[in-house]
Amino acid sequence: MMRGLTFYKRFSRDFHDNPSLVKLLLVFTVSGGGVVAYSESKSYGLNVVHASEADSKKKRVVVLGTGWAGTSFLKNLKNSEYDVQVISPRNYFAFTPLLPSVTCGTVDARSVVEPVRKIIRKKTLDIHYWEAECFKIDAQNKKVYCRSSQDTNLSGEEEFVVDYDYLVIAIGARVNTFNTPGVEENCHFLKEVEDAQKIRRTVIDCFERASLPTLSDEERKRILQFVIVGGGPTGVEFAAELHDFVSEDIVKLYPQVKDLVKITLLEAGEHILNMFDKRITAFAEKIPKGCPIDVTNRRVLATDEWLRVEGCDSVYALGDCATINQRKVMEDIAAIFSKADKDNSGTLTVKELQEVIDNICQRYPKIQKSSLPGGLPNEKSSATAQVAAQQGSYLADCFNRMEECEKNPEGPLRFRGEGRHRFRPFRYKHFGQFAPLGGEQTAAQLPGDWVSIGHSSQWLWYSVYASKQVSWRTRVLVVSDWTKRFIFGRDSSSI
Amino acid sequence: MMRGLTFYKRFSRDFHDNPSLVKLLLVFTVSGGGVVAYSESKSYGLNVVHASEADSKKKRVVVLGTGWAGTSFLKNLKNSEYDVQVISPRNYFAFTPLLPSVTCGTVDARSVVEPVRKIIRKKTLDIHYWEAECFKIDAQNKKVYCRSSQDTNLSGEEEFVVDYDYLVIAIGARVNTFNTPGVEENCHFLKEVEDAQKIRRTVIDCFERASLPTLSDEERKRILQFVIVGGGPTGVEFAAELHDFVSEDIVKLYPQVKDLVKITLLEAGEHILNMFDKRITAFAEKIPKGCPIDVTNRRVLATDEWLRVEGCDSVYALGDCATINQRKVMEDIAAIFSKADKDNSGTLTVKELQEVIDNICQRYPKIQKSSLPGGLPNEKSSATAQVAAQQGSYLADCFNRMEECEKNPEGPLRFRGEGRHRFRPFRYKHFGQFAPLGGEQTAAQLPGDWVSIGHSSQWLWYSVYASKQVSWRTRVLVVSDWTKRFIFGRDSSSI
Repeated sequence: MMRGLTFYKRFSRDFHDNPSLVKLLLVFTVSGGGVVAYSESKSYGLNVVHASEADSKKKRVVVLGTGWAGTSFLKNLKNSEYDVQVISPRNYFAFTPLLPSVTCGTVDARSVVEPVRKIIRKKTLDIHYWEAECFKIDAQNKKVYCRSSQDTNLSGEEEFVVDYDYLVIAIGARVNTFNTPGVEENCHFLKEVEDAQKIRRTVIDCFERASLPTLSDEERKRILQFVIVGGGPTGVEFAAELHDFVSEDIVKLYPQVKDLVKITLLEAGEHILNMFDKRITAFAEKIPKGCPIDVTNRRVLATDEWLRVEGCDSVYALGDCATINQRKVMEDIAAIFSKADKDNSGTLTVKELQEVIDNICQRYPKIQKSSLPGGLPNEKSSATAQVAAQQGSYLADCFNRMEECEKNPEGPLRFRGEGRHRFRPFRYKHFGQFAPLGGEQTAAQLPGDWVSIGHSSQWLWYSVYASKQVSWRTRVLVVSDWTKRFIFGRDSSSI
Repeated sequence: MMRGLTFYKRFSRDFHDNPSLVKLLLVFTVSGGGVVAYSESKSYGLNVVHASEADSKKKRVVVLGTGWAGTSFLKNLKNSEYDVQVISPRNYFAFTPLLPSVTCGTVDARSVVEPVRKIIRKKTLDIHYWEAECFKIDAQNKKVYCRSSQDTNLSGEEEFVVDYDYLVIAIGARVNTFNTPGVEENCHFLKEVEDAQKIRRTVIDCFERASLPTLSDEERKRILQFVIVGGGPTGVEFAAELHDFVSEDIVKLYPQVKDLVKITLLEAGEHILNMFDKRITAFAEKIPKGCPIDVTNRRVLATDEWLRVEGCDSVYALGDCATINQRKVMEDIAAIFSKADKDNSGTLTVKELQEVIDNICQRYPKIQKSSLPGGLPNEKSSATAQVAAQQGSYLADCFNRMEECEKNPEGPLRFRGEGRHRFRPFRYKHFGQFAPLGGEQTAAQLPGDWVSIGHSSQWLWYSVYASKQVSWRTRVLVVSDWTKRFIFGRDSSSI
């Protein structure tokens, strides 16, 4: 049923032949839409404990979240002048590009996670981790309100407050359903390790159920129709994994139903692997003046190019929960002109222009011709793993050299003020050939062999190998998982 | 806190010092108490489908359950004159002796399971598997009533009926709580793979929770008190695993709470590793005449020495759901005497006794002096993995040679009838040195080095290596898991 056609061709055909589809296992892989928003601060009558009184000389940095951005920040922070506290309901970092492999048992869930405590234990810094979720940020008084994320009847105070000097928000985003009716109720999402495990069990369940003796072929077909919504890297990769699972393992174990399987990938755009969904940008919002942050609503935090939340002193936001409001050169053209026009002649000489052009290029990167394939990604689009990781590493670098750069600022000229910016603004570097980021290209246009999706293990190996975020443990375990799969096939037990 | 004392010593001390304990994570590992019982048949108005019409010449064998007994039966069945249908809500076999290792992440859950479909695919026989649970057996009409075990809204007939010529019941037993109040609500059980995964998450959760900044040391101690009920192999092994997990991995990741951990093993008997709890035998019941079987209540099926359910033609029961009612030689002494007294002299000559003594020894094994260390285990006690596996293999052998033995019976003389029994009665062979069965000995009396519980991996290797039940896949994966643990330690992510 699915031999003789390449994976990509099958998909193109399925998608064009079946505009309307009966959905049974429906996996939703569209990302974007932040989880953070701004609202008026409410007053809470909490039984609170101030957790951090440790070393009053050190600046207190509180990090919310242990995803790509938060973990990258922690891994790259080297300055021991900070007292760091990490708060996240998830006590591990998950290497999310491998989640599609977890859905079909190619890679084990445990191989793509790394305990946060293990990550911070390796540092010479003073870092504490607490498994809790932040439910309120009081930016005015520099306090974070937290509570245990465990649903348990064990005793102990449920809530506590942590003071900070700097706050790093890296809590990720909920999946953006674009308010499509029925999505929440009828779809699996693929964002967390638990999602991947649940999808895996559901896939097996579908095959077991379709094998029962009482069903008609029509019913079996309905049960074995898998619909994936979202043709980004996650969706395509999951579809490829499912296809491999069916054609390599399922055919042997469920021979009586193997010909009834249908995998369909739905994508709103014209091409799959087209990452930049314009609707996502609509979720970004400017920050209002005054600045208490409510972490319960569903908006993205807007930051400047230095990842500072607009309007909030000492609060940084990175990863999926943030979007950079890149200033456009035309907005500042008058200020730039007057700064460049040193002799106030009303005109710029070649020499005057030469002196500011580097600063303009740094501050307004859009005008700089990109030398990278696919061009610069749209930084307002939903941030992906690599963007988050680079932001974390950038911010850690700023924190490492904070004192040094206060004295010797290295950023571009301040066109609207005096002197220079302390740091160079954050710039995303695109490594298209290794990471599943795509750029503004489609599959066919991407360079190298790694997008031939049939050879997913090779591609995965590259992505694992390439990422600095990944521990040696993960690398070894993933390769060991591939070896296991090569020898024994994927496990089809419904656990 | 737990250094300097051997594991066993620590346990003995803890148990004697703390007769009353605050229980937080309470793992219940006592087994026994069957799940099958007899009741009057009710009439069901089902929308049913008769599934097996395939080869009317072949005898139809239906196997309920994919645990040790059922899987062992399937693995050893070689006679292609049967049309075999396997029905179980669990589509995999679990190597249960390694479950304690799964609780602490020493071995991965997936490494100790083997899909049933993979097991039956290797056979040349006609074997079908359906993921369903049997909810009624009609032994009079030789029908089994089944329904899908999936809780789903997918369409399709929910229930179906399977006809059989022979029925093999190997559905295991629920954990016997002895009706102790609070056990169901407050304890984890350790019987299924899911139990082990749940315990693992709970252990990590306890450490995360105890690390929160708001707790008093008293509260932390309460959260980190682990109580294990049942000093059989499972309980002792889990306690040892938890101890190793804490002393090898947790101490590094949760240094601030490591000294507050307390592991307590509770055992009603005088010694741990004493397997034969007399109370369990009280659950066995004789079968009433007529014989519809209700699979919803909680009694054990009584069988004869050939594993046939008493009063039910063509129904066999093995593993934890069955108990063998071993006839005692004194009950039959008059019949034995009259059979032996060939010349009806009213006395036996030496020659007459010589001719029957072998048959007596076969039929009434208790009178035979055991050459095995520890003596014969009490066959009325809760069957364990090795008993179940041997019963499955024994029954498969009977099925393989059914026709042959009808013609040339190989069993002992029938003292109450004519001729010989078709088969030799089932006899359990005790392999104490490899399997965690214990016998009627305590830990100190068992032979060899393998019960030195500190060296659990060595012991585990033996048990894996020794069991014929285990696939090469499991062996390789378990050794690979041990290697991973050796290099990277156990994973403490809460997934």
